[in-house]
Amino acid sequence: MDLLIKNGTIVTATEMYKADIAVDKEKIVNIGCSFNESDFDEVVDASGKLVLPGAIDGHTHLALEFGGTISTDDYYAGTRSAACGGTTTVFDFVNQAEGEKMVDAIKRREAIACNDVAVDYSFHVAVYDISTEELMDSLEESVEYGVPSFKVFMVYDNGVDDGTFFKVLSRAKEIGALVGVHAENKTVNEYLIDKYLKEGKTDAWWHYMAKNERVEGEADTRAVNLAIMADAPLYIAHLADEQGVKAVTEARLKGYPVFAETCPQYLNFTSEVYKRERGRDFVCSPPMKDQASQDAIWEAITNGNITTVATDHCPFLKAEKDWGIVKKDGTPGNFTTIPNGCAGIENMYPYILSEANKGRISFSKAVELCATNPSKLFGLDDQKGAIRVGLDADIVIYDPEKEFTITNDKMHGDTDHTIWEGIELKGYPEATYCRGNLVFKDGEFLGKRGAGKRVKCHKLHFDGPSL
Amino acid sequence: MDLLIKNGTIVTATEMYKADIAVDKEKIVNIGCSFNESDFDEVVDASGKLVLPGAIDGHTHLALEFGGTISTDDYYAGTRSAACGGTTTVFDFVNQAEGEKMVDAIKRREAIACNDVAVDYSFHVAVYDISTEELMDSLEESVEYGVPSFKVFMVYDNGVDDGTFFKVLSRAKEIGALVGVHAENKTVNEYLIDKYLKEGKTDAWWHYMAKNERVEGEADTRAVNLAIMADAPLYIAHLADEQGVKAVTEARLKGYPVFAETCPQYLNFTSEVYKRERGRDFVCSPPMKDQASQDAIWEAITNGNITTVATDHCPFLKAEKDWGIVKKDGTPGNFTTIPNGCAGIENMYPYILSEANKGRISFSKAVELCATNPSKLFGLDDQKGAIRVGLDADIVIYDPEKEFTITNDKMHGDTDHTIWEGIELKGYPEATYCRGNLVFKDGEFLGKRGAGKRVKCHKLHFDGPSL
Amino acid sequence: MDLLIKNGTIVTATEMYKADIAVDKEKIVNIGCSFNESDFDEVVDASGKLVLPGAIDGHTHLALEFGGTISTDDYYAGTRSAACGGTTTVFDFVNQAEGEKMVDAIKRREAIACNDVAVDYSFHVAVYDISTEELMDSLEESVEYGVPSFKVFMVYDNGVDDGTFFKVLSRAKEIGALVGVHAENKTVNEYLIDKYLKEGKTDAWWHYMAKNERVEGEADTRAVNLAIMADAPLYIAHLADEQGVKAVTEARLKGYPVFAETCPQYLNFTSEVYKRERGRDFVCSPPMKDQASQDAIWEAITNGNITTVATDHCPFLKAEKDWGIVKKDGTPGNFTTIPNGCAGIENMYPYILSEANKGRISFSKAVELCATNPSKLFGLDDQKGAIRVGLDADIVIYDPEKEFTITNDKMHGDTDHTIWEGIELKGYPEATYCRGNLVFKDGEFLGKRGAGKRVKCHKLHFDGPSL
Amino acid sequence: MDLLIKNGTIVTATEMYKADIAVDKEKIVNIGCSFNESDFDEVVDASGKLVLPGAIDGHTHLALEFGGTISTDDYYAGTRSAACGGTTTVFDFVNQAEGEKMVDAIKRREAIACNDVAVDYSFHVAVYDISTEELMDSLEESVEYGVPSFKVFMVYDNGVDDGTFFKVLSRAKEIGALVGVHAENKTVNEYLIDKYLKEGKTDAWWHYMAKNERVEGEADTRAVNLAIMADAPLYIAHLADEQGVKAVTEARLKGYPVFAETCPQYLNFTSEVYKRERGRDFVCSPPMKDQASQDAIWEAITNGNITTVATDHCPFLKAEKDWGIVKKDGTPGNFTTIPNGCAGIENMYPYILSEANKGRISFSKAVELCATNPSKLFGLDDQKGAIRVGLDADIVIYDPEKEFTITNDKMHGDTDHTIWEGIELKGYPEATYCRGNLVFKDGEFLGKRGAGKRVKCHKLHFDGPSL
Repeated sequence: MDLLIKNGTIVTATEMYKADIAVDKEKIVNIGCSFNESDFDEVVDASGKLVLPGAIDGHTHLALEFGGTISTDDYYAGTRSAACGGTTTVFDFVNQAEGEKMVDAIKRREAIACNDVAVDYSFHVAVYDISTEELMDSLEESVEYGVPSFKVFMVYDNGVDDGTFFKVLSRAKEIGALVGVHAENKTVNEYLIDKYLKEGKTDAWWHYMAKNERVEGEADTRAVNLAIMADAPLYIAHLADEQGVKAVTEARLKGYPVFAETCPQYLNFTSEVYKRERGRDFVCSPPMKDQASQDAIWEAITNGNITTVATDHCPFLKAEKDWGIVKKDGTPGNFTTIPNGCAGIENMYPYILSEANKGRISFSKAVELCATNPSKLFGLDDQKGAIRVGLDADIVIYDPEKEFTITNDKMHGDTDHTIWEGIELKGYPEATYCRGNLVFKDGEFLGKRGAGKRVKCHKLHFDGPSL
Repeated sequence: MDLLIKNGTIVTATEMYKADIAVDKEKIVNIGCSFNESDFDEVVDASGKLVLPGAIDGHTHLALEFGGTISTDDYYAGTRSAACGGTTTVFDFVNQAEGEKMVDAIKRREAIACNDVAVDYSFHVAVYDISTEELMDSLEESVEYGVPSFKVFMVYDNGVDDGTFFKVLSRAKEIGALVGVHAENKTVNEYLIDKYLKEGKTDAWWHYMAKNERVEGEADTRAVNLAIMADAPLYIAHLADEQGVKAVTEARLKGYPVFAETCPQYLNFTSEVYKRERGRDFVCSPPMKDQASQDAIWEAITNGNITTVATDHCPFLKAEKDWGIVKKDGTPGNFTTIPNGCAGIENMYPYILSEANKGRISFSKAVELCATNPSKLFGLDDQKGAIRVGLDADIVIYDPEKEFTITNDKMHGDTDHTIWEGIELKGYPEATYCRGNLVFKDGEFLGKRGAGKRVKCHKLHFDGPSL
Repeated sequence: MDLLIKNGTIVTATEMYKADIAVDKEKIVNIGCSFNESDFDEVVDASGKLVLPGAIDGHTHLALEFGGTISTDDYYAGTRSAACGGTTTVFDFVNQAEGEKMVDAIKRREAIACNDVAVDYSFHVAVYDISTEELMDSLEESVEYGVPSFKVFMVYDNGVDDGTFFKVLSRAKEIGALVGVHAENKTVNEYLIDKYLKEGKTDAWWHYMAKNERVEGEADTRAVNLAIMADAPLYIAHLADEQGVKAVTEARLKGYPVFAETCPQYLNFTSEVYKRERGRDFVCSPPMKDQASQDAIWEAITNGNITTVATDHCPFLKAEKDWGIVKKDGTPGNFTTIPNGCAGIENMYPYILSEANKGRISFSKAVELCATNPSKLFGLDDQKGAIRVGLDADIVIYDPEKEFTITNDKMHGDTDHTIWEGIELKGYPEATYCRGNLVFKDGEFLGKRGAGKRVKCHKLHFDGPSL
Repeated sequence: MDLLIKNGTIVTATEMYKADIAVDKEKIVNIGCSFNESDFDEVVDASGKLVLPGAIDGHTHLALEFGGTISTDDYYAGTRSAACGGTTTVFDFVNQAEGEKMVDAIKRREAIACNDVAVDYSFHVAVYDISTEELMDSLEESVEYGVPSFKVFMVYDNGVDDGTFFKVLSRAKEIGALVGVHAENKTVNEYLIDKYLKEGKTDAWWHYMAKNERVEGEADTRAVNLAIMADAPLYIAHLADEQGVKAVTEARLKGYPVFAETCPQYLNFTSEVYKRERGRDFVCSPPMKDQASQDAIWEAITNGNITTVATDHCPFLKAEKDWGIVKKDGTPGNFTTIPNGCAGIENMYPYILSEANKGRISFSKAVELCATNPSKLFGLDDQKGAIRVGLDADIVIYDPEKEFTITNDKMHGDTDHTIWEGIELKGYPEATYCRGNLVFKDGEFLGKRGAGKRVKCHKLHFDGPSL
């Protein structure tokens, strides 16, 4: 057999225990306590280490065209960075073009990704146009193609109205799909932008003010209401505010299949960052919120009402962030001309595990949030997301004793800065295996460009808040 | 002096007590217990009767052009009917036309109303177009003109988007105005209409289904969220569902000045009426909801979280209601081709007082809901809304012993049917005085066309849920 | 006629308006706007002043034997002080002795009070012993005697157990009475006292810690649960904590007749006072709580879920308060040997009205909390509690412009210190009339010892949270 | 190696997957997919079957002296019955005698149990007497002895008062123990019993009425409040009512380590059973509650706020149940003279799995409730509670296709009737292994009296509602 990982402590979403793991032909084939080492090509001693499933980052924007540029990390840089942070699968967003069928959109992006990806991947489709029956029906083709998760935007120019959102929710339920949502109130956001700019308020702080707690909270609440109306499951992406937590929690208590994702940036930063000199580097949507919201998100993680953590990875260069001061064309910029998004793909798992290591949550909870729950929500739990016989050998060996201070130069993407600069972590991944292949070891990327495979996800049915 | 009403039991929003009332020059000038009858031109003995302030109907649509016709009661018929139901002031809706300044809209309607009204009246302005600064500024002119209450629609073709709603809320607060809202989710309603009609579901029941509990509840919740965001007071018109009650109640518990109006039809009927043979006669918007919603509304009346009762009076003839079967043009009709609205202006006060008389609420609560609270919310509490020295002598003498069964032929409007047909009341108004003038007695209208006056309302400021 | 108060602004629980008040034979006989001054023996010009109903202090402990001494103010000193603070009726507590029938207990105290009282008064009976049917039946005799309000203690040696409390609630409902409660968890309080004293923690701070937010909150919650179980109305005395507010509010939202009283000390001070050098002067039960609790109480006043304000007036001399350091017998004292209680009878109305004057609540709300609601809850709304024709002429003329700093030497009781020392008020009572008799004017007591009368209260029935 | 279970579908608390299980020396030593069958003494083909961890019944009363008799099942009959229902570990209650140290009480019962038990077992200690420091300190000795879970009763003659409960909670937290509670309001229950018996209401229905929803709900709420006050974890045994669910849920949402157990009888029956002719057979405490409570319990199972299911197994013979009609001594009986308790030890796992099989919950949820969560809560997750390498080979092979109707003659205990008579299940255990030993197969008990071992549980620490 190919590989034996011995003497480690396996962490699953429910337990920690000592056992050895046998890997063969990219799969975990055996978990036990008395293997014959000579049966294995390679034996790794994980004494004193935790052995975790590779993380699944359910939310990335690689090579995204946005705001007059393209997000800094292409599929290679992004997945390379992911591998080095213990993430072995990424879900990237496909943006449907006008009139484009969902599967066509997926294939368009797959063609770009397939040669670049260093870890496994799949997609969610951002749905904008369902104006014809053919486009509507193409949702089901997407599910058949292995992409059963969609997303709608309630904000931005191509954001959908409530009726369209409702229609997508209704259809998604029928065809075994899950609808995610970027929830912010579009027209209030627009009104506030207009108001602030007229008042000469242009810096990053006003990005936050125009997308404040209630601008998001109202939309979260509405999204939950629409899902309940449509009797369909819902996934709220990047939940960042207290009111949203309340709406999600109340729905779940009543038995509705409503799920929320949050991101490490909302757990570690508050809106105070927008007062910093380079507050613009932190501009993403939704923005970080106040302390009460951060507290509420942590509380929901503890009580089980936030289901996943993902990154919304979408970095831009400092020079591009500076367009908030002076635009690309040399005219004065403002908070609306800053490309939205930050790097995080390499930081998620280390950060969450570090919080576990510091005692805030259990390691099992960290694994549940970053690997097991995403695998269930997006339909790949029969392939990934846990240390379990029969699954892909996506494995992270984690050293709980290692001290690690994040600096951009230690990161493996193509970005020139990180909002995580200087953050101190307790514990860090030592090695990452993707389908049994070593892709990261001791700080170094060891994978191969294009070695990642697209994961075909199964259909999704949720009867209640079981995650 | 003009008039002495003696020996009655005065009912105010907080108490019931025996005292006599002296009226002179249209005002209540004295309340006491030892008047000299010879000082009065007329003495009325109200022994065994309750003496109440005339009701203020905060929501009527008289002579409204709608759905290819005009609501049956013009200002004369409507106010005649009002007088005979103990209502001495009505607030009618002015619908702003595109590009029309608010005061111009008011004056346009005032010109029609002033010659017809048999009781006092004022307006709310339904705001549709604030696309220019001039139109926006005309809100303040309206306040100066004595009309400090506006309404926006979240539904219908000319319904406003959230950003516009937010803008109106923000401005209203600055200028001392109150914004009311017709809250239903526009695009979900449209989607459901489209869906049901495609499925061949055309009868009145589907009017309800397309505007179901959650279609309204979502919009109520959103309206409350927008008001909180704008830090502005809010008035939810015709609240009819449980989720809306919850949203309003939670906001009020947190100290926000959010007020809700409900209507007698929601208190007495449920959506079951749409299954009746002439379910179309009950078609109004929002529609009656299920029993749980009716229970929630009554509960909110009891615990003080619904602030007013008004009628949304807007009757149409049976032949017009039949357009839901066969349209005016002879082609097949459906639930969307039924003119929306029902009669109620003459039934509100008798119905609510009857419920009090039957023990469900106190008489003081009935007076608070139908007279005192509207007077405070709409800015005429220095003129009307209570039995109090200095106020207009708008007085109803109510016989708590009289049995009364509502039939359309006993009503005094111009409609040819009533949804209240056959309802049995305990107690009924015996006489109505508007500014000291007898306008109704023993079942007969005694007022005069055109005798009503427009009430100039004062500016509105609300710091919390004090009503 | 005896007296005309002219040109003032009358404040009721629902409104403020200008009118003149005619008083004759101790009653308000007329309210109007065109009196002939020559008809009156005395005419008072209240221009620029507010004219309020005298306050009803629903909670006092005059001449109370407690902790080896007697509370400083006897019935004369206490009611003299009350009059000078605008309070014209006090409800004092009668403590039933073992085996004593309720009416006997009342008459025992009435005999003491009747010669001393300078304003009107009534009693609540603190029920300790219902071990026989005769004692149980004496509850009804008390109601017939005009005392329909009882109180049980959940704490202290003679506190009742839940079964007894439940029994009293059940009987009270049948006989038209209201049960009040002093809610603190007895055995947890005892355990904490024991624990702290063993740990050598003896100062006033530990009085608070042993009766902390949850010690009261648990008992408030339990009291509400027992009342709901017994389907009986409940009055929670001196509510001081957030959890209690929550329990009361939830019950009221569901329509239960649960009422809460708070006291000025909880509205103005927090538990921080127990860290002061003379923290012992602030020792009362329940103790002041933390800021969150104070905020919750104010919020509940605003949203209507606290129904009354009363004082729990029970002062002791500084030398007696010092028993917390060295006991009467010379041995070391601790927080349990401090007599519990503070002065407040003269401060309630001025403090609450000052808060209104500063804009925190309306004047109508102040009147509702301190006069109108107590009159309804305790069964004297047909005699007192409002400015209304037919009621006793208990009237306060209030000068909203007067600046007043509380100092003990300005107070009119017998105490040698006040926790209110140095508090600055905006506005102050200028004159107080009790049944038309001037008892206070411009800082001076003008009443007569023994002039007060016992008020006979009517039976009490509450169907819901209508107050 | 001893045993291979192949081709089955393993069910854990988070997943279902196909894999084979190798058992050796009573432990699960390997889970994999390519074993060599010749390495095993025995090979069991579980094709088409589910392979589950043995259930852990956290609540039994075997050989309990109660109400003048002893519960029907001794340790042999009870554990024999358990084995045949797929339960491989039982937690029985030790009732501390007055003045008895905890460990002495445990050893007293252990001496009885050890020769009888057919499956593994441990104890919880019902604490009644902590009146001395020595008794208090014996709690810690119990923890050291492997029994870190205690229980207090809020009801019954030897129920503890709140202060004592609080003291136990506080100490338990310090020593790594968990306190369970039987929550019913003692004195209200006593008052209602007294009242009903005086009114001649004697049948089983009044057992329910005297322990109605609110009698339990109040106590549940109080228990939660006390735990929060003491900042200690809490386990509410046999939660059966809606208000209790609410209290537990709210505490968990705030992050408190509050856990609830319910029982199959509350999930399947309502208080309507007490109207049956042999309603007395259903008498247990707490009694079954109304439909709203049953719905609330199911909802809490779905949303994760009920943590475990256990049986409260405590059967009595029909003749003993008849003492509710005629007492043992021949005098007339009533609901208080019925021995409290019902059989259930053999029905729990089959019933819950059947509900899963019918689609109400997932199989993983069934395993979590009946095995994994109890193992974590009571400190044996390093030994039992899951299908995991290193744990005891407590394994149930479950046939999801088998139809099974419960009848008492198919049960394996010593009772002469069952409240579950006639209930139809979908799926049933086919075989049970306790530490690798076959104890049940195809309806037949195959274990050995005395073969069970006492499990030594580890210390318990809970930081939040992580289960």
